[in-house]
Amino acid sequence: MSNANSLDALIQALRRLPGVGVKSASRMAFHLLQHDREGALHLSQALRQATDSVRHCALCHTFTEAEVCVTCLDPQRDAAKLCVVETPADQSAVERTAAYKGRYFVLMGKLSPLDGIGPKDIGLQKLFDRATDGVVQEVILATNFTAEGEATAHVIGEALRSRGLQVTRLARGVPVGSELEYVDLGTIAHALVDRR
Amino acid sequence: MSNANSLDALIQALRRLPGVGVKSASRMAFHLLQHDREGALHLSQALRQATDSVRHCALCHTFTEAEVCVTCLDPQRDAAKLCVVETPADQSAVERTAAYKGRYFVLMGKLSPLDGIGPKDIGLQKLFDRATDGVVQEVILATNFTAEGEATAHVIGEALRSRGLQVTRLARGVPVGSELEYVDLGTIAHALVDRR
Repeated sequence: MSNANSLDALIQALRRLPGVGVKSASRMAFHLLQHDREGALHLSQALRQATDSVRHCALCHTFTEAEVCVTCLDPQRDAAKLCVVETPADQSAVERTAAYKGRYFVLMGKLSPLDGIGPKDIGLQKLFDRATDGVVQEVILATNFTAEGEATAHVIGEALRSRGLQVTRLARGVPVGSELEYVDLGTIAHALVDRR
Repeated sequence: MSNANSLDALIQALRRLPGVGVKSASRMAFHLLQHDREGALHLSQALRQATDSVRHCALCHTFTEAEVCVTCLDPQRDAAKLCVVETPADQSAVERTAAYKGRYFVLMGKLSPLDGIGPKDIGLQKLFDRATDGVVQEVILATNFTAEGEATAHVIGEALRSRGLQVTRLARGVPVGSELEYVDLGTIAHALVDRR
């Protein structure tokens, strides 16, 4: 493709999106230029707007356009409970259950020593400051049940317990609606140990 | 996600990319805002630049920034041969073989009656005008060997033959490097019929 430099540049720029290789990027660029130039301009505008205005909530670290996000400002929420999640998407999943009415802290990542991501990179100090503000009584660790998520929960749990806080973890067990025959053995083993 | 309107807007804008659903769009938006804001601005700029400057070559209809693309301007190419492909990516594949030194016409699509895409939508009249300019002697149909690609080749072939042009189609047959045992039967049947 030497016919259009700005087309090549667009394909290279699209490749920076996660999960997009050179074939997908070409397909996206051709689609936008051939069938949806309005969509391309719309996306260009949305990227600039979001980059300019989206920042982190001063209290919970999630994405927001204000100094403090609406969840943190909500006076109906129980300030004594702090739920720690990895991403805004995870926060949204917990929120949709309608089973939790406390506050959140969004790590915006997870510890991953193999990728060189340590405590500083995911702002653990900010979490420790928030959790030890004297109001928070219980910290609920809702990081993912992956290797990195478990490691992250372990590190945070140890640090907060040593500061005298009550630390809990989401229950591990058999998913709702599943049949034991098809559930993996590690999950059943955990469900046996944590039986109630 | 009600915390950041411009984040929601960005996710919606990303969903207009082909093959991107709401989960992928959220992942892309989070990635750009958390880890690659420079990439987001770069993409915003590339989208605007490409939308402003990329247009269609007056002769072969491919993407270009000039009035006529470099391939059409190349005096070394055999103007008597015209290869018809569906997309710039297909053109690039033919070009990389280094086995063809003629000119191209890029349809920028294919006939697809089920999707409501007829001869006018892919600019067949422009192809007919180009092919009957008195210089072109042979039109090589290199549309894909899919149902739509075959239908497109059929329609173009019929129209150009009735205008007295020599029309050929890429050979169908067994791919280079393959073992007959693993080649589909339709391909072997075509290779038998077209044996030489």
